[in-house]
Amino acid sequence: MKIFGIAGSLRKGSYNKSLLRAAKGLLPEEAQLEIFDKLAEIPPFNQDNEKNPPSVVAELKEKIRRSDAILFATPEYNYSIPGVLKNAIDWASRPYGDSAWEGKPTAIMSAATGMIGGARAQYHLRQVFVSLNILPLNRPEIIIPEASKKFDEHGNLTDEYTKEKIKDLLKALVEWTKRLKQN
Amino acid sequence: MKIFGIAGSLRKGSYNKSLLRAAKGLLPEEAQLEIFDKLAEIPPFNQDNEKNPPSVVAELKEKIRRSDAILFATPEYNYSIPGVLKNAIDWASRPYGDSAWEGKPTAIMSAATGMIGGARAQYHLRQVFVSLNILPLNRPEIIIPEASKKFDEHGNLTDEYTKEKIKDLLKALVEWTKRLKQN
Amino acid sequence: MKIFGIAGSLRKGSYNKSLLRAAKGLLPEEAQLEIFDKLAEIPPFNQDNEKNPPSVVAELKEKIRRSDAILFATPEYNYSIPGVLKNAIDWASRPYGDSAWEGKPTAIMSAATGMIGGARAQYHLRQVFVSLNILPLNRPEIIIPEASKKFDEHGNLTDEYTKEKIKDLLKALVEWTKRLKQN
Amino acid sequence: MKIFGIAGSLRKGSYNKSLLRAAKGLLPEEAQLEIFDKLAEIPPFNQDNEKNPPSVVAELKEKIRRSDAILFATPEYNYSIPGVLKNAIDWASRPYGDSAWEGKPTAIMSAATGMIGGARAQYHLRQVFVSLNILPLNRPEIIIPEASKKFDEHGNLTDEYTKEKIKDLLKALVEWTKRLKQN
Repeated sequence: MKIFGIAGSLRKGSYNKSLLRAAKGLLPEEAQLEIFDKLAEIPPFNQDNEKNPPSVVAELKEKIRRSDAILFATPEYNYSIPGVLKNAIDWASRPYGDSAWEGKPTAIMSAATGMIGGARAQYHLRQVFVSLNILPLNRPEIIIPEASKKFDEHGNLTDEYTKEKIKDLLKALVEWTKRLKQN
Repeated sequence: MKIFGIAGSLRKGSYNKSLLRAAKGLLPEEAQLEIFDKLAEIPPFNQDNEKNPPSVVAELKEKIRRSDAILFATPEYNYSIPGVLKNAIDWASRPYGDSAWEGKPTAIMSAATGMIGGARAQYHLRQVFVSLNILPLNRPEIIIPEASKKFDEHGNLTDEYTKEKIKDLLKALVEWTKRLKQN
Repeated sequence: MKIFGIAGSLRKGSYNKSLLRAAKGLLPEEAQLEIFDKLAEIPPFNQDNEKNPPSVVAELKEKIRRSDAILFATPEYNYSIPGVLKNAIDWASRPYGDSAWEGKPTAIMSAATGMIGGARAQYHLRQVFVSLNILPLNRPEIIIPEASKKFDEHGNLTDEYTKEKIKDLLKALVEWTKRLKQN
Repeated sequence: MKIFGIAGSLRKGSYNKSLLRAAKGLLPEEAQLEIFDKLAEIPPFNQDNEKNPPSVVAELKEKIRRSDAILFATPEYNYSIPGVLKNAIDWASRPYGDSAWEGKPTAIMSAATGMIGGARAQYHLRQVFVSLNILPLNRPEIIIPEASKKFDEHGNLTDEYTKEKIKDLLKALVEWTKRLKQN
């Protein structure tokens, strides 16, 4: 089972990028996680170019399409989804009738320095999923507060409780994907 | 009174850009509208660069700061704010303590080809406003359906009812701005 | 397949009650729809009584539990879910660990007199579903505008296009329920 | 200045009722807080009766109308507003053209046993405010986690930091109300 992972931050030391890297080591045996690392190269979405997108967007869409499931690691900017992440979502949803997101089983996780950061972004993201016909897990919801205490200086996740929660999320995503596939 | 207008689309024939242009001719006498036309030049937000932003971002922030009020014209992409618009909002809100949006009286309008397009983007935008301490008008809400019937082939707003609604919005924004300023 | 239907209005001539009644005649052959008609009897939720709920709440929970899928017909009050409907949802979700909603495949429809009424209630309802671990259909979304033109004076749905859309919704709900059950 | 306070829970030992009581002792000198204590008596809203509401609803509307500002203390039920609170809001907003909420300066606070409880209810409430033309404070946002540690066994708020935050909220509400009134 191929999971496609995308983090919604360009910051070098991004906790959400670190979460995705940590997820690589916490997967059920049957699953692989490919992390998209070209978010910085995706230009502002312009509908005039949607039928002839930049090659990095074509690559993004191809990777989404080839995956069985999606894993978002999103920070929260200003009580919503980061513009850079939403912009990538917008590109990959277009042109009309050629969205790459259609029907994908999906999970979300967030890390933030504060106490509730991430939650508000996740509920906005879930509304976007209705439009995209993405099929998200309801549970567990992974909203990691006080992220600065959970990672070491190299961005490695060190908090055992958080590791267990991510393991649970990944296991649930694999099961949800199988459940939706059987048919 | 200086109003700063920003449209959330890069499309050349964007209905929301057209709405902003139309607004220029529908202002109360005491108000001016300056339209930001460099959204396409704003790169993806990277927090690592927030203290040394590109000059186009510095310009955006300066224009917001010098304005008395803000006017957003936003399309809806995937049931939320376009990534390109959210990205500009994110840049102008940073670094922490140096947001340009603080306390600005604000109004929103949207045009869309469908029937409810725009509404969902506007409510997400309103949640972002709580974070930014932007002070939005509640009414009138301008959500223009079936936009293709309301503009001519040059993008000029031709629908009289829509013109009246935009006039009402601009008048209400000017009054709201005065009401908040007196103190 | 048993579908449990609940409308979020107490008004005698409620369009949303009428929608549910119309749905009865538009079901796939394999499905039955039982409509809950005691919403008016459900008292205000008081957590102090959650372990000893009124009998109408016990009945509501039993009917939800015995069903294979749920169909909500919700009006929109003040840009959100009607209090009376949310109150019934709250009762049936309690006490902790004894929610009747857990894992139920679900669809939503709305009728309103205006143009976008219903949409905002539906997205709030979808956020509630995350909490309840309800599994909603993404599509089709049934948001019926200008309801007064779609029903006759006895509350019978007369609009053929709307009938087709409800048929599509019910068919999709049955398929979604099967897809989730196979496992 | 008269502030009208309403808590969204019927539970006897409700933390949100306790918050309101605590607010009484933390008011700026110029303000009074009247707490509504008849939420349990408000029946399910039925639009058929909106022109002839029960006397408790007439009383609620009268109290809102006579107030200069509103203070909501809302728990979160199932990631949204409690049905009982939304039901009271719905009654007081009707019939069309006779809402009691129109233009009221308003603040929100929430206490919850978990870490983010209350936040999701507050953002839904804010969307309802757009419909009602309620004018909410953006800041401070009072979302009190781990409520069981902040009150004594009689429901008295004992946490000093929380007291200071409520003081800040009430001061900001008084200032916001004055700012909106001057005109």
